[in-house]
Amino acid sequence: MQATVLYGARDVRFEDVPAPAILHPTDAVISLPAACICGSDLWPYRGIQAVPGPVPMGHEYCGFVEEVGREVTSVKPGQFVIGSFFASDNTCPHCRHGYQTSCQQRQPVIGAQAPRMRVPLADGTLVPTRDVPQAEMIPSMLALSDVMGTGWFAAEAAGVTAGSTVAVVGDGAVGLLGVLSAKQMGAGRIIAMSRHESRQKLAREFGATDIVTERGAEGIERIKELTRGVGADSVLECVGTQEAMQQAVQSTRPGGSVGYVGVPHGVTLEGADLFFRHVRLLGGPAPVRRYLPDLIARVFDGTINPGKVFDLTLPLEQVAEGYRAMDERRAIKTLLRPS
Amino acid sequence: MQATVLYGARDVRFEDVPAPAILHPTDAVISLPAACICGSDLWPYRGIQAVPGPVPMGHEYCGFVEEVGREVTSVKPGQFVIGSFFASDNTCPHCRHGYQTSCQQRQPVIGAQAPRMRVPLADGTLVPTRDVPQAEMIPSMLALSDVMGTGWFAAEAAGVTAGSTVAVVGDGAVGLLGVLSAKQMGAGRIIAMSRHESRQKLAREFGATDIVTERGAEGIERIKELTRGVGADSVLECVGTQEAMQQAVQSTRPGGSVGYVGVPHGVTLEGADLFFRHVRLLGGPAPVRRYLPDLIARVFDGTINPGKVFDLTLPLEQVAEGYRAMDERRAIKTLLRPS
Repeated sequence: MQATVLYGARDVRFEDVPAPAILHPTDAVISLPAACICGSDLWPYRGIQAVPGPVPMGHEYCGFVEEVGREVTSVKPGQFVIGSFFASDNTCPHCRHGYQTSCQQRQPVIGAQAPRMRVPLADGTLVPTRDVPQAEMIPSMLALSDVMGTGWFAAEAAGVTAGSTVAVVGDGAVGLLGVLSAKQMGAGRIIAMSRHESRQKLAREFGATDIVTERGAEGIERIKELTRGVGADSVLECVGTQEAMQQAVQSTRPGGSVGYVGVPHGVTLEGADLFFRHVRLLGGPAPVRRYLPDLIARVFDGTINPGKVFDLTLPLEQVAEGYRAMDERRAIKTLLRPS
Repeated sequence: MQATVLYGARDVRFEDVPAPAILHPTDAVISLPAACICGSDLWPYRGIQAVPGPVPMGHEYCGFVEEVGREVTSVKPGQFVIGSFFASDNTCPHCRHGYQTSCQQRQPVIGAQAPRMRVPLADGTLVPTRDVPQAEMIPSMLALSDVMGTGWFAAEAAGVTAGSTVAVVGDGAVGLLGVLSAKQMGAGRIIAMSRHESRQKLAREFGATDIVTERGAEGIERIKELTRGVGADSVLECVGTQEAMQQAVQSTRPGGSVGYVGVPHGVTLEGADLFFRHVRLLGGPAPVRRYLPDLIARVFDGTINPGKVFDLTLPLEQVAEGYRAMDERRAIKTLLRPS
């Protein structure tokens, strides 16, 4: 089998690897009708996050169960399933509190930029769909595995409620799906921060009511203007840089909340600053597993179509070009089709 | 009139000052049957927080309205009133959201370690009690002005709910009243971190079910043991140092919350650490004004008796000894009686 391996900064290869197999009795092997590249894959791709050696890439997945280990009871071959980028047992105390990405048995799921993959802890991790989704739904189902669930968590962590005023920092796939999530939660006003016309357009389609193109102090000023000097009730931080976090914290009204889902790289917060701003913070790897049943239902009934974030489709073997297109911001998110 | 003035580190003087008077039409002047010293007064007293020049001290107060400015309509001479350490208009958007300590017109209230004081923005700031409280209730009413409301905010910010497991970092008056607040909110288990026998005793009286005497890594380990490796649902950080904040963050389960009310001194948080811990954070100057009506009712009906934190009573003119006793941890909190 050929699959995607990152060797170092900007060195993505599509090459022969051992076929995935059941290694533990709780594993499943699934085949993947589509794969994709995540914004977080760009951290190691850009060399900002060290790569210790060749690493199988891809952590977003949905597909057909091909084989299960002897202890797996909740999914069976032929079913269509979706899982999160972290495998979880879904039974430990953290899982029961709804934080499956902090599962006591948590392990990363990797190797999804491939035609097939192994998923650990299949019973806790995989959610089978009611029916096999139609082909045109596959991109939306794939988006649920990470970016849609992550946007949803950002909105939930930021305490979005009906009628509230929301600002979204970051116009990548997660930020855009944060807009969609806020809209689904009934936000009255959604301010998307974006400088890119195609992303602004999708943000509006997903429910953004205002676009702010300014950044830094000017961006904060603009959000204050739009909210009569008060600040937003909820701010979604979907980047992970110090600048984006500051933008988020300073755009929030006292008593409001920041939900942050961009993996923090070099982000530091001053206790006294947060204290006097009265800003509530919650972030982390999105507990996608918690949201999957609900989000799958919303895709099936046509309420949401998060697959719209894929604006470039390539054959899987051209995965390296997919990384380049996202790195250069020519694409919001790349869908890969195994041939 | 004689009142308390801090000149510099460990230099507290009780000396002649101009009598308080109405300076703005929204002011009130009140007379104080009792005054007290706050844990936060110890920051400048110890020289950890710079003192630019002689500063009138004291920000906790309750007492009788003596005189009001011509625009004051909600309180009148003779009424017994309580207010917060920050004056607020109680009408701006931040106040309406319940964050009166971030009021757009916020101003500090100072000079309460005195027989009389001026309170700005009297209509928004002062809450009159139904009746004049009996003399023995005065200490509890005085505690509502800051420490009780601050403990309450810590518990609320930490998301304490019925049946939840709570840990409290800090055994000063605020930490002890955080225990009382968590108990009032129905916490099932309350772990107080304290090494001092008299404070442990009061913590138990207020509702603590467990005492942890260890600190740092051992303290965290102990809380993990007590919670079967999970961590507490809610942790109240009532100190304001880096060590206390780390203690709080690391004692919280994923998806749990830290409510922090110790004014942060040199506290820094790593974004990536918070992210992977899934810990929710909210802190700040407690919006005491929001809680006053409810807390006053609880004192009147005998549900709470927060005045128990006063374990030393001195004549007001001996205020310097009151500071020393708290600095040396001989007293939890000092009550001062004007003669």
